[in-house]
Order: sequence, then C-alpha cells, then structure tokens
Amino acid sequence: MAIDTTLEHLTSPWDHLAQENPLVGFLDTLLRGCGQVMFQNNPLTGLLFLIGIFINSALLGVAGLIGLVVSTVTALLLGADRSLIRAGLFGYNGILVGIGLAFFVHWNAFLVVYIILAAFLSAVVMMGLLNLMGGRDIPALTAPFVISAWLFLFGVYLFHHLPPSAAIAPTLLNPNAVVQTDLRPLPTGLAGAGITILNLVEAFFRGIGEVFFQDNLATGVIFLIAILVNSRISALFAALGSLVGLLTALFLFGGNGYWVYHGLYGFNAVLCGIALGGLFYVFTWESTLYALLCMIVSTVVMASISVALSPLGMPALTAPFVLTAWLFIWPRGGFHVLHPVALADVTSAEHIRHDFLAREHAVGVGRTVQPAP
Amino acid sequence: MAIDTTLEHLTSPWDHLAQENPLVGFLDTLLRGCGQVMFQNNPLTGLLFLIGIFINSALLGVAGLIGLVVSTVTALLLGADRSLIRAGLFGYNGILVGIGLAFFVHWNAFLVVYIILAAFLSAVVMMGLLNLMGGRDIPALTAPFVISAWLFLFGVYLFHHLPPSAAIAPTLLNPNAVVQTDLRPLPTGLAGAGITILNLVEAFFRGIGEVFFQDNLATGVIFLIAILVNSRISALFAALGSLVGLLTALFLFGGNGYWVYHGLYGFNAVLCGIALGGLFYVFTWESTLYALLCMIVSTVVMASISVALSPLGMPALTAPFVLTAWLFIWPRGGFHVLHPVALADVTSAEHIRHDFLAREHAVGVGRTVQPAP
Amino acid sequence: MAIDTTLEHLTSPWDHLAQENPLVGFLDTLLRGCGQVMFQNNPLTGLLFLIGIFINSALLGVAGLIGLVVSTVTALLLGADRSLIRAGLFGYNGILVGIGLAFFVHWNAFLVVYIILAAFLSAVVMMGLLNLMGGRDIPALTAPFVISAWLFLFGVYLFHHLPPSAAIAPTLLNPNAVVQTDLRPLPTGLAGAGITILNLVEAFFRGIGEVFFQDNLATGVIFLIAILVNSRISALFAALGSLVGLLTALFLFGGNGYWVYHGLYGFNAVLCGIALGGLFYVFTWESTLYALLCMIVSTVVMASISVALSPLGMPALTAPFVLTAWLFIWPRGGFHVLHPVALADVTSAEHIRHDFLAREHAVGVGRTVQPAP
Repeated sequence: MAIDTTLEHLTSPWDHLAQENPLVGFLDTLLRGCGQVMFQNNPLTGLLFLIGIFINSALLGVAGLIGLVVSTVTALLLGADRSLIRAGLFGYNGILVGIGLAFFVHWNAFLVVYIILAAFLSAVVMMGLLNLMGGRDIPALTAPFVISAWLFLFGVYLFHHLPPSAAIAPTLLNPNAVVQTDLRPLPTGLAGAGITILNLVEAFFRGIGEVFFQDNLATGVIFLIAILVNSRISALFAALGSLVGLLTALFLFGGNGYWVYHGLYGFNAVLCGIALGGLFYVFTWESTLYALLCMIVSTVVMASISVALSPLGMPALTAPFVLTAWLFIWPRGGFHVLHPVALADVTSAEHIRHDFLAREHAVGVGRTVQPAP
Repeated sequence: MAIDTTLEHLTSPWDHLAQENPLVGFLDTLLRGCGQVMFQNNPLTGLLFLIGIFINSALLGVAGLIGLVVSTVTALLLGADRSLIRAGLFGYNGILVGIGLAFFVHWNAFLVVYIILAAFLSAVVMMGLLNLMGGRDIPALTAPFVISAWLFLFGVYLFHHLPPSAAIAPTLLNPNAVVQTDLRPLPTGLAGAGITILNLVEAFFRGIGEVFFQDNLATGVIFLIAILVNSRISALFAALGSLVGLLTALFLFGGNGYWVYHGLYGFNAVLCGIALGGLFYVFTWESTLYALLCMIVSTVVMASISVALSPLGMPALTAPFVLTAWLFIWPRGGFHVLHPVALADVTSAEHIRHDFLAREHAVGVGRTVQPAP
Repeated sequence: MAIDTTLEHLTSPWDHLAQENPLVGFLDTLLRGCGQVMFQNNPLTGLLFLIGIFINSALLGVAGLIGLVVSTVTALLLGADRSLIRAGLFGYNGILVGIGLAFFVHWNAFLVVYIILAAFLSAVVMMGLLNLMGGRDIPALTAPFVISAWLFLFGVYLFHHLPPSAAIAPTLLNPNAVVQTDLRPLPTGLAGAGITILNLVEAFFRGIGEVFFQDNLATGVIFLIAILVNSRISALFAALGSLVGLLTALFLFGGNGYWVYHGLYGFNAVLCGIALGGLFYVFTWESTLYALLCMIVSTVVMASISVALSPLGMPALTAPFVLTAWLFIWPRGGFHVLHPVALADVTSAEHIRHDFLAREHAVGVGRTVQPAP
C-alpha cells in the first residue's frame, strides 16, 4: 500500500532509468508489485522476493509472473490512476493469484487461462475496494487476492479441465479427534519431531516464506533480507510475526505441530505484524503491543477460517490476515492512544514515524511559544 | 433499476390510463416489477415475462404473483418513495422470492405464509440496500431476493411444515469425482447427448428462461422477445450472456453438460450481460469487452457458489450474478476507459448512450467555440 | 446502545457516588455493560441480570465477569471515548463472549486466556463498528460478540488445549429427516411432552434467559423483572418477543419442540423486540407491527443460520438477532410511516417516545400559530 516518492529514491540511477525508459518503468512497476505483497514499495525488495520464489519453485514463479503481468496490464488498459499502478498496487494481488491457483490446481493450458482470468479479476476487485473503502482510509490488503482466488478455486470441483491438486481435500469435522502437537516436518511418523532449535528455525523462516506459498527455509531467509533492504521496522515486525505465530500456536493453544513446522501459523501473523507495525498506525509502544495482540488473534483466526472451509477442502489463503488486520484497523481514530495513518501517507514505517514526530514537535514548539502582545 | 419517464412512454394510451386510474396504475406497477427482474422498466416486457412463466408452470406463476403483490404492497403500506414503487423496484425481488420458494419447497398452506413473509422481507431488504448503497450509486440488483430466499430456504430443514422438494440435496464434495461433460438433457443416460445444434439451441434459450427458474425453450424465446420490446441493446447482451455462459462452461472449463443444457451456466451471465451492457456503464466498445469478461467470470462464480453451498444442498440462485456484477460495478469511475452511470440515470441502454453522446458532443462543441472577445 | 443522562438518574444516590468515587464508577460501568446486553443502560438492571446468571450457573457467571472486565478495561486502556465506556457499550459484548466460550469449551487455564483474548477482541470490533457504521446511525448490536466468539469457537477443533464441550457437534444435513415437533424438555423420550401451560411457561421464560445462554425458568423471570426496572416498553417487547418466537416456531413452521421448550426460538426474537420496539424506531402502532414481523423473521433466520453452521457443529449465537435486526434497521428513513432514532438519541423507549411527541406537538402548534402581521 506504500507510495514512496522521497528524494533519495528518485535520485537513484534505477529510478532515473525507470522514469525515462517506459520498459524499465514497467519492469520497475512489476517489481514494486511483487514487493507490495509485504507492503514494501521497493523494486529491489520485489526482485529478492522473486529470487526467493524461483529458488523454491520455478513453476510457481512462472505462474506468479503471469498473474503479476496480467493484473498490472489490466489496470493500465482500463485506465486506472497511473500513480497507483506505478506503486505496484495492482500487481501484488495478481502474483499471489497466480501462485495460489498453480499451487492448488494441476498445470495444463486451461490453468493458464484460469490464472489470466483470475488475475484480471483481482485488478477489478482492487479498484472496487479502493473506490469503496479508500475514502474511509481502510486498505484493501490482500482481499482482492483472497476473493479472486477463492472464487476460482471453489469452482474446480465442477470443472473437468481444472484437476485439483492433492492439497484440496475436504474433511469431516470431528470434535473428538486428537490434535497432534509434535513439532515436525512430516504429516505421518515422528521422524525429527520435537521442540529443537533446528525445528524452531525451520518454522520461523518457513512462516515468512509461506506468505508467497513458499514452504522453504532459504526462501524465508531471502524474504526477510528483502524486507530489511527497504525497512528495518517492517523486517522486525515480520520476524516478530512469525515468532509470535509459531509460539502462540505451539504453546498457548496446542496447534498442529506439522502446521507450525511448515509455517502455516506464521504467515498471517507476519503480514499482520508488518501492517500494524508502523504502517497503518504510527510505530509507538502502544501500537507495538496492539500489533502483538493482532498477531496472536490472527493465529486463532487462521484456525477458525481453516475449520470453516474444511468441509469444502479449501485453503484459508491470507484471509486470516485480511480479516484480523481489518478488525484491528477499523477503529482508527477511535482509540486515542493509537495514531492512525491516512492511506495516502502510508509509505514506510520509518518515514511515517519521522513525519509524526516532526508534527508532534511542531505542535509542542507552537504550544510553548508566547503569543505576541 | 430503470426509471424511465421519457415522453413517448407517457403519451401512450396505457400510460395515460395508468396515470389516471389507480387500479390500472397498480397493475402497471406490478408488470414493471416483473420486467425489472431483467432491468426492463416496461409493463409490456413484464406481461410477456408473466406469459412465458405461465406457459411453463402455472403453479410457479401463481407463487410469483403472490410474491410480486406482497412485496409491492409492503412498500406502499410502509410509505416508500412512490416513484421507486411505480418503477417496479419493490416487485422484482418479490416475484423471484415467490417462484424460488415454490421451486424448492412442496406446496401447502404454510408455504403460502412463508412466501408472504419472505416477499415482505425482500421489500425491507430492498429499501435497506437502497438506503445504504444508493448514495454511492451501487445498485441492489437481485440481492434482496437472494438474501430473503436463502434465509427462508436454509430453514426448511428444521421446519416440519415446509417439506423441501427433491431439488434440495446436500452432497459431500469429492475432488476426484469425474465431471460428466456431455451436453444432454438427462442427468442419467446418454440419450440425446452431444454438441448438436438442437442441444445448443435448447441450452441457449433455457439459459434465458432460468433467470426466472423456467427450464423451458419456449419460455426462453418469449423472454428474449420481451426484452427486445423494450431495448435492443439489452436483448443483444441477454443473448450474448447466455451464449458466452454456455460456451465458456462447455469448452473452456469443462463444466457439467447437464447443467449447461438446462441453462444453469447461462442465467447469471444473461443478467451480468444486461447490467454491464449499457446500463451501469455507458454502452461502448470498452464496456462491451468488460461485460464479456464479467459474463465469463460469472460462470466461474456460479460453480464456486454452488460448491460452497453443496454441503447444505442449497441453490446458488442469482447470487453469482449479484456478486460478479457488484465486483465489476464497484470500480465505477476508477477505470477511466469506462463511463459509469448514476443510479438515477439508469433508464434504458439506448437512452443512456444517447444522453452520453449528446453530452460528449456538447463538450466537444464547447471546446471549439471561441470565447467572445 | 442507550446513553441515558436524564436528571432523575443523576440525582439518585448511587449515581452521585459513581460520579465521585472512581471505583464505584467502574462498578457502575460494569453493571451498565451487563444491562446493555438487552439495551438497558441501568446498573440495577445489570445487577439483576448478574444475579439471574449466578442463580443458574456460577461458572458461567465467573466467565462472563472475566469477559466484562477485560473488554471494559481494554476500552479504557486504548483510550476510547469515556462517555461510550461509561454507558457500558464495551462491556456487553465482553460478558457474552465470556459466557459463550465457557458454554462451548471445557474449563481449564487455557480457556481463561482464550476468554481474555476474545473479550479484548470484542472491544476492538465494537470500536471498529462504531467507527464504520455509527455515522450512518446503524448500531453494532451484538455483532462484536458474534464475530469474536465465532472466530474463537471455530478454532477449537484445531487446538489441543481447548477441548470442545458436547454442545459442539457437527451433523450431516438430511432433507428427509423428520423434525420432532413435540414441546418437551428432553431431547430423547416423550416424558412431559405436549402443549401444556407448564411447558409454555417454561418455554416463555427460558426464551428470555437464553439471551445470556441461561436455560432456566427462574433466571428468565428475574431477567424480565430486570428489564421492567428500567423500561416498561422494553419489558413488554421482550415478553412479546419470547411469546412470538415460541408460537411461530411451534405452530406456524413446525419447529423442533425441544428447541422451543429450551427457549432457542425465543432469545433472538426477544432482542429483536427490544431493539425494534421503541429504541431504533419511535414506539408507534406502525413500528410495533414492524417489530412483530421482525420477531417472526428472526425465528426463520435462527433456523437458517443453525442449518448453515450445522456441518461445522457451531452455534448461531445471537447472529439471527443481529442479521434480522440490521435488515429491519437499514431502511431507516426510507419508510415514511416509521420514525428512525439517531444513535446518539437512543436512550429508553419511553424517553424516545416522549421527545418525539414533544417535537411533533411543537411542530403542530407552530403550524396553527398565525404569523404576526
């Protein structure tokens, strides 16, 4: 959601090139779209995200690129506001749609058409949410991805040309079923089970990787570095999110240890952390505590949405993040200890805090100045 | 949604009679309510719709009339705006509620009470959505029907006096189940199967008939003529909708051929076509392409909502149309190549385009006129 | 939702004490929060509600108190508007969250943490809904409770530390299953079955008690007295609600007689009655009829939401009330025979009607006064 046009960025050689050469500009737009999945309006962050994805799966990477290009081109052809497009706001849902559909449906030519249609839809939904909620400063988050991907995924049961992958498996709920809580990599067997440093490290980094459906330690490491390139505060909250998510699920609620290992209780908390940690509220001690509670709640919501969808065998995607973050963002100015940020001012956590402190200082100075007699 | 008060209509003998005689006026209101199911504010269109319904099923026709009268009278008694009532905006959800409940519940005296209550509710919901979304120029579409009918249909499992028909059948989802893709009239057996001209014609017209739950070739033909009486553009897009829906489901996604034959992949695309084709955006080449994509997406959404409701055995009704059309209408002015129409200006596709061109021309002339020295 | 600061209340000794002593003030806030579950901004009503709960179950009472305190303290710590907190608007969802979670999950230390988190969330959601819908005068009702409790309840299937009680039982839907319609206390056997005065009295009072999950005759009696202490009109509509709910389910639709006996078709109608009966529309003959229809619809919606959640084995909570009342409140000024009340003016049904009549009288007098020559 971050539109960052500070001088230090505009003056960099790449940005100059992107301003002058339309092709580089388009490439820059795509990379920013990739970075915006974790709210980082920075082409280098986006490039590192892409590298992290391709390291884990070239197939998912290609599917993501199709979605990224289609949703961005859709916004260009339909004449969306250029500054929004340039900030990558139409690309980030498209890349997630592409990866998400390729993750849950077997590859064939029809899937490519399906991804193109769903990525197109994600750009339409993004503009719709901007139009409906932008005026009240409520961000769309990854809702366009969740809506578009769900609408296309649910249908695969009824479409012969779109064979679902093994990840789609409806189950009957049983309140007496035992939840297995061992932290371990495999769904069956206890090989490598236990709360070991190695398992915790795996869970921690996979939690960051799973934001893009990447169940991979190295990818998680690259993602964290990619965020750090643009914002230390966002990187801190991304790390906090994955940590809080795994610890909460593991110790507080007794969640499935296989899910925890593979980062499934982490990625929504990661996104909640980044969003609440200095972007939609100014980074303060109060907002940090608020963000921590948002992360914890998101792990509960991950479980609840997964349960709600289990008769359909459908994945929660990033809906737990979208729903939880919305619930925590809706109060905005209603809680006086928090300082909400207008959508147009959502740049990076550092800039937002800097501007806030400057304003506070100005008011403080103004207060102490004596009025002229 | 169309409020049409152009001179040529007011001067017709029927309209004069409807203005002067309250009983004829009420009859006119009911017929317009019937026509508004497909956005045609025209009593003749409504009359032809009714004839088409009664040709297929007098029982469903009577149920529809009960709903139509109750929802219209509700709006009158509660004191809704007269011009809205006269345009049929409280009747179109009522007639659908009546037909829908009678389609899924066995006839008895309790069902009549049920239809009366649900039709009453549809008028309340219509006013609620007008109040909540009208100011942002988002139309209610058939959402009041879908909401009211779902709320009353879900409950029949728990009510002894309301025995569900065989059309209500919950099923367990199975991702490995084979989707049968033969185009054919029967759910079992392959009699008459295949992509024949006859089967395609059946599917095409049944797709239009299914807007009112009418699975009947002749009814579909009458419905298309009924739309043509009021608007050539709307008739064109209704036909395009049914065609795109059936071709998309049949060839692109490999949908159930039995569903395609009976128009179940057509009726939501028909409604999306009429709504997007010149009513909520001005009819241009760009909006036509946008409408075509909306029709295609609506076939996916028909599958996805059907899947979501299959554990409950409940029908999607026109929810795929409402959801898809909303997603495509929400962007409104955000996409500069499209020209959104304010709700108060939604008359017929022809009038809207005429007024738009006149305005464009005026601006163009204004531009070339030299300011007086 | 009622903010009542009339003189007769401020002058009472308790209110003086609550104004001066912060601890008494906090206690007063908690009691009002309890009373606001049924829209009664009165500490005595709240105290009687608490007594009614503890008579039935001390365990549920303690769980409710935890939720009440946590949600109120959350609002205080986050700096919500003091006048809203003092009116009990952050407490009423918290007490319901506490009781609701303790009703559906077995007691242990983790449940206490769970209740604390969910009650915290309910205060956040309340502020969010106030912010989003308050400007349009749409009340939050018990939506913060329903959202928070559902999000936490759904998850228990996946959390080892939170063992669900026997009340959570997913069932497969069967349209041919016979609904047993005998009015009786037990789910099995016909002991005590039949439409007897005793059974009807039980059903009537349990319907009021079930607003707080209290399936108990004496509790229902105390609750009705508690409402009467603050408002005769609200008490009348609470009684009407329970009566209409049980009669509708029993005779009109043929609902489950066990459910009717235990008040499960009553509590949503009770809340609809109080809300629509003189609080969000001025108490008139027209609004009374409108409220009666709202009660009837709420019994259908109780069935439909229960059906929708049955594959998950989850309870409808007060969602039928929230959804139905919203549908009936959304039209607001759109129906001219009803007089909607602005949120800031929602005090007690008596005050609202008094102020309305005074305004009407002033306008009437104004009309007859001759302008000075």
